[in-house]
Amino acid sequence: MQVIRSIAELRAWRRSAGRVAFVPTMGNLHAGHLALVAEARQRADTVVVSIFVNRLQFGQGEDFDAYPRTFDADCAKLEAGGVDVLFFPDERELYPRIKQDFNVEPPHIQNELCGAFRPGHFRGVATVVSKLFNIVQPDLACFGKKDYQQLHVIRAMVDDLNMPIDIVPVDTGRADDGLALSSRNGYLSADERAEAPRLYRNLAAIRDALLAGDSNYAALEKTACDDLAAHGWRVDYVEIRQADSLEIAHVGEPRLVVLAAARLGKTRLIDNIEVTR
Amino acid sequence: MQVIRSIAELRAWRRSAGRVAFVPTMGNLHAGHLALVAEARQRADTVVVSIFVNRLQFGQGEDFDAYPRTFDADCAKLEAGGVDVLFFPDERELYPRIKQDFNVEPPHIQNELCGAFRPGHFRGVATVVSKLFNIVQPDLACFGKKDYQQLHVIRAMVDDLNMPIDIVPVDTGRADDGLALSSRNGYLSADERAEAPRLYRNLAAIRDALLAGDSNYAALEKTACDDLAAHGWRVDYVEIRQADSLEIAHVGEPRLVVLAAARLGKTRLIDNIEVTR
Repeated sequence: MQVIRSIAELRAWRRSAGRVAFVPTMGNLHAGHLALVAEARQRADTVVVSIFVNRLQFGQGEDFDAYPRTFDADCAKLEAGGVDVLFFPDERELYPRIKQDFNVEPPHIQNELCGAFRPGHFRGVATVVSKLFNIVQPDLACFGKKDYQQLHVIRAMVDDLNMPIDIVPVDTGRADDGLALSSRNGYLSADERAEAPRLYRNLAAIRDALLAGDSNYAALEKTACDDLAAHGWRVDYVEIRQADSLEIAHVGEPRLVVLAAARLGKTRLIDNIEVTR
Repeated sequence: MQVIRSIAELRAWRRSAGRVAFVPTMGNLHAGHLALVAEARQRADTVVVSIFVNRLQFGQGEDFDAYPRTFDADCAKLEAGGVDVLFFPDERELYPRIKQDFNVEPPHIQNELCGAFRPGHFRGVATVVSKLFNIVQPDLACFGKKDYQQLHVIRAMVDDLNMPIDIVPVDTGRADDGLALSSRNGYLSADERAEAPRLYRNLAAIRDALLAGDSNYAALEKTACDDLAAHGWRVDYVEIRQADSLEIAHVGEPRLVVLAAARLGKTRLIDNIEVTR
């Protein structure tokens, strides 16, 4: 595996790479990321992974500085996963003037769900992913369903700005007890880790109720919020939405997604389940 | 010359095109556009021109509906200029949902100079040029210096979003009396056409004064504004700026540009001159 740190070098290499699949990450790789790599590996001649902790998508008071950086361990995992090129730029390579002047501005969905609690987050995601796409020029890119709203924003951006890239969604990796794999799970204490699967259990309970014909979305959401709050969580949201558009779901909608974000101690966890009726 | 109207067809053709130069236009082509085409022709295996009158960059009350559409004459000129492909999409091809959801948002310069009088204009330009770049995937693109602020915005965007495209500036084409070639010159009455070169003459007078060592930018700007106003123009601005950044110019700045926009009757004309001391 080649490690490339400059944009110029990556572009020079890119010209002879054939069909390229791309997996953008912030590092601290777990089995969820490696599932993205495996999917990419199956679909292209060449797999490029990037590791870049993107300051632009972290808000004031969020965990940019604390975000785990585990470069050596990440390299070993990517090497084992058959990755061809790791693009690992420093901040000056991607933000040479410190400030990013041009931004890719998503529509109103950027201010809903997680966006309501993380102002500017999805603008930062859309902008850095645009930059990485322009640098790597992949034929396809893999994104996890774990970050469902992010996946939605990226797919909509690619469509709306006519980017010549196929976006491939990959299922969420989970621990045996259902907890979605996430770098932020590393922040949890032992007690919090034991409590954490409650988020998924509540989403699964809503899924089961929906599949059984319950259409009182508001009541289902409230039951989950109450259960989480009763066990010490601070809930940002639990919402049932249309799976394709992430718009508010109406009764009878066939393809739904249940999304949640909640805080356990200092750790903010997110998860979601798709429900097709 | 092939005329291609769909994105899918253009992308399929693009794969075997070699080094591609791109000239985006709104049609109604004059010698200024053909100079862009000639420059493109010199620099690449293949030349793609687009004609698309982009609603997104016209404001309320501007001339979107009146903007001249002269497709057959344009085709003949492009054919004679050795263009390989004309991309001529209709509005549904570029804006299938009518509304553009994701926008490329330029920094504060979008609200200065012409941007102060055309709110949203440069966002519309940056967004449609991004879309066209993503569709055509050119190696280089030619833009006229006539639209100096637009050229600045596009160059800064390409740099800041890491687009893999060389931007080639091309000198402004002029009539014998100095008037910059523009589709909007066609709106002028015979009397207005005779008056129109005064804009260039004022810019040239400022250039000559700057080269002679005059550094009282405000006085030079005011003299030009007053002369234009005295001859029936409504002046939007005459400004001396730094050529590279378009920021406010300080005394002693070596590379300047003098930019102006003013209205003669219903027609808004713009022009500029670079000055290197």
